[in-house]
Amino acid sequence: MLDIDMAMSPNPAATFPDFSHLPHVVIIGGGFGGIAVAKGLANKEVRVTIIDKHNFHTFLPLLYQVATAMLEPAEVAYPIRTIFGKAKNVGFRHATVREVDHVRNVVMLEGGAEITFDHLVVATGATASYFGIPGASKFAMPLYSLADARKLRNRLLSSLEEADALADTAPTSLNFVVVGGGPTGVETSGALSELIRTVIHRDGLRIDPSRVRVLLVDMAPRLLTPFPEKASAYAAKELESMGVEIEFGRSVVEVEERAIRFADGERLRVAAVIWAAGVTASGTLAHEVQASPGPGGRVRVMTDLRLVESENVWAVGDAAAVPLDDTTFCPQLAPVAMQSGRHCAANVLLSLKGEPTKPFKYRNKGIMATIGRHAAVAKLPGGTIIKGTSGWLAWLSLHLFYLVGFRNRLRVMINWTWRYFDWPSGPRLIVADAETAE
Amino acid sequence: MLDIDMAMSPNPAATFPDFSHLPHVVIIGGGFGGIAVAKGLANKEVRVTIIDKHNFHTFLPLLYQVATAMLEPAEVAYPIRTIFGKAKNVGFRHATVREVDHVRNVVMLEGGAEITFDHLVVATGATASYFGIPGASKFAMPLYSLADARKLRNRLLSSLEEADALADTAPTSLNFVVVGGGPTGVETSGALSELIRTVIHRDGLRIDPSRVRVLLVDMAPRLLTPFPEKASAYAAKELESMGVEIEFGRSVVEVEERAIRFADGERLRVAAVIWAAGVTASGTLAHEVQASPGPGGRVRVMTDLRLVESENVWAVGDAAAVPLDDTTFCPQLAPVAMQSGRHCAANVLLSLKGEPTKPFKYRNKGIMATIGRHAAVAKLPGGTIIKGTSGWLAWLSLHLFYLVGFRNRLRVMINWTWRYFDWPSGPRLIVADAETAE
Repeated sequence: MLDIDMAMSPNPAATFPDFSHLPHVVIIGGGFGGIAVAKGLANKEVRVTIIDKHNFHTFLPLLYQVATAMLEPAEVAYPIRTIFGKAKNVGFRHATVREVDHVRNVVMLEGGAEITFDHLVVATGATASYFGIPGASKFAMPLYSLADARKLRNRLLSSLEEADALADTAPTSLNFVVVGGGPTGVETSGALSELIRTVIHRDGLRIDPSRVRVLLVDMAPRLLTPFPEKASAYAAKELESMGVEIEFGRSVVEVEERAIRFADGERLRVAAVIWAAGVTASGTLAHEVQASPGPGGRVRVMTDLRLVESENVWAVGDAAAVPLDDTTFCPQLAPVAMQSGRHCAANVLLSLKGEPTKPFKYRNKGIMATIGRHAAVAKLPGGTIIKGTSGWLAWLSLHLFYLVGFRNRLRVMINWTWRYFDWPSGPRLIVADAETAE
Repeated sequence: MLDIDMAMSPNPAATFPDFSHLPHVVIIGGGFGGIAVAKGLANKEVRVTIIDKHNFHTFLPLLYQVATAMLEPAEVAYPIRTIFGKAKNVGFRHATVREVDHVRNVVMLEGGAEITFDHLVVATGATASYFGIPGASKFAMPLYSLADARKLRNRLLSSLEEADALADTAPTSLNFVVVGGGPTGVETSGALSELIRTVIHRDGLRIDPSRVRVLLVDMAPRLLTPFPEKASAYAAKELESMGVEIEFGRSVVEVEERAIRFADGERLRVAAVIWAAGVTASGTLAHEVQASPGPGGRVRVMTDLRLVESENVWAVGDAAAVPLDDTTFCPQLAPVAMQSGRHCAANVLLSLKGEPTKPFKYRNKGIMATIGRHAAVAKLPGGTIIKGTSGWLAWLSLHLFYLVGFRNRLRVMINWTWRYFDWPSGPRLIVADAETAE
């Protein structure tokens, strides 16, 4: 009650803290990278503004669990203002960036407002890459935002409802095709297969489970290519035991509204095509801050994360082509985003003091992918592979640890425990129609 | 794991239970009334189909907490199929009803499908009544569905973001007007005022709280007219201590996109008009099942809940004008819906056995309204008034008790406990743009 009374005290306007005399660091994007930059600048001698079109930070690694009705949107999203509630020098602007004026040092927002910066950090992340495949950007369903996850969940559950409604008259087959055998494809296809089997049985849907296929396709000859072959084989075996059909060496040539066409000529009717084939930074403002972006549409930065052609513009995370060594770049992974964000904050502070900046070094902490509810594979930096339940527990703890907000961690832990003991309840709400209907 | 394996066993199609030889009871609507009917018919010698345009049951009494970012949608909604997971004779159809053919005993769905019934129960509930006030149905925001609650939450939070963005250039005033001093208006205006004060303070918004007004207006001279005057005065005092301004004797003559006009000529610019002024059953299929509906657009039923002109069509809950005595009708309240639903199920079963039906008697268990986080008023059947913290605890327990699903009860209890101890976190996500953006 106390702080509410304080907020209602007379002349609270007088208590707005004034940071206008401090250098202004503007961060575009409130993902892992942008949040890490702002955390590094919290309570320092700078004024910080995070700009994002969403008022929340999204924990992308768990989006597939929102899509498969295991978690609720609020469990993987956290209001950006709340993250920085105690850092009075960090502000938030709920807006979409239209343009950056490098001459005037101004960010121009949709709607016409302008924000002047002393330093600008581009942390706009990446989006799904469709490799120019016809229909893919329009009809395939990516998993790169909370909206994507909700749309996919609605599609999955609605497809099952439609199949149930047709049970008496025209029993249908349902094909769900997941394109891409990387961690996202593996996690999503496993969770999807589990969801479908569980829902059909628990909710008494009149659908023959053998007529519902979850197909994971990839051009490559194995899953999880960054892992050793043994881990790939393990993941494939686990997925297959969960009912996922895996097809290697298949490339997609077209996606239609309810069909997919492969290079070998097969055209398959589908309930949904889930796109987990790769990411690009193109179209995420990279072209706006730099005349010729680097690989994957990413912003080219120097080793200190500053743009080659700039004194005061930086880029971090998936949006940046961060040099790993002389010829390669860091992978587009959450740990890179967090580490480069922290490093960028330190370099901005050094730069403001007129001191030399330091080069960024990526500390590889390993990679991991979960497969269903009891299995995962993890590859540690030395090359050690952890798999099975211990891999799964490692995956669990790490994701809980990085999830923002104690309450979210608690809720997700409760949900996972619940699911582990298999109690029959889950947020299987089709909410899209709740948006448009009435 | 066991049941998943079962679901994947060969020829599971052969295990679809077949109830086609049993009389078919179709229930339109999965609210309190419809769910109560289906529960009364679960595992009886009938086949039941619930039709609803949403695949979930919504706990309407807590919608205002979703609108004010205290609860998440999934905490007040529960999949209808999951409710009846163990009652194999109860099915669900995710569809919108277009028409009822009383001659052929067929319900016609949007999209062309038809469902034949032996008995039909109309449990379509009520929607906001705008009393023909110009602009109200278009611009005022009701609280009668999960979609309404989400839209209102987005409007509230977005308005605060917009005001914060203008803090440097053009500080704005924000007016939120709640129309209607019944339980919904009292609950919503109290929660709204709490939300605004808390958010401004906690999230460090650059908004002067004294420039944000929450106005509760009603034509009547006091709040909560079904309660005695003393309870009304108590509610008004509590609300005012929470920062809500109450204005009696004011009637609305027009609602514009961002303004409201009163009969006294005042035109007020608003961030939102929240409509809690009354309900109607019109347009909820009542006109479709009956040539001339009763009071408030409700379906006229006999004391056994059967339509006057029908042998096999029934109506329950808010959609029905249920006789209370010779001249009056039951109020449109959740307890009436639940009791009439249970009674209707029993009468349908009697009717199927060829036995005489029994008249419905409403057992008044009292009414209650909550005001903010620590206060509530309740009126027991004898006329006794409970108020303050004990009223609030009674409100709390009752709502937890009726919330569907143990997991939802647990989660809501955790949320309420959390809020009681005032820990600074809540699902303050603006999710509407997550729907449309990308």
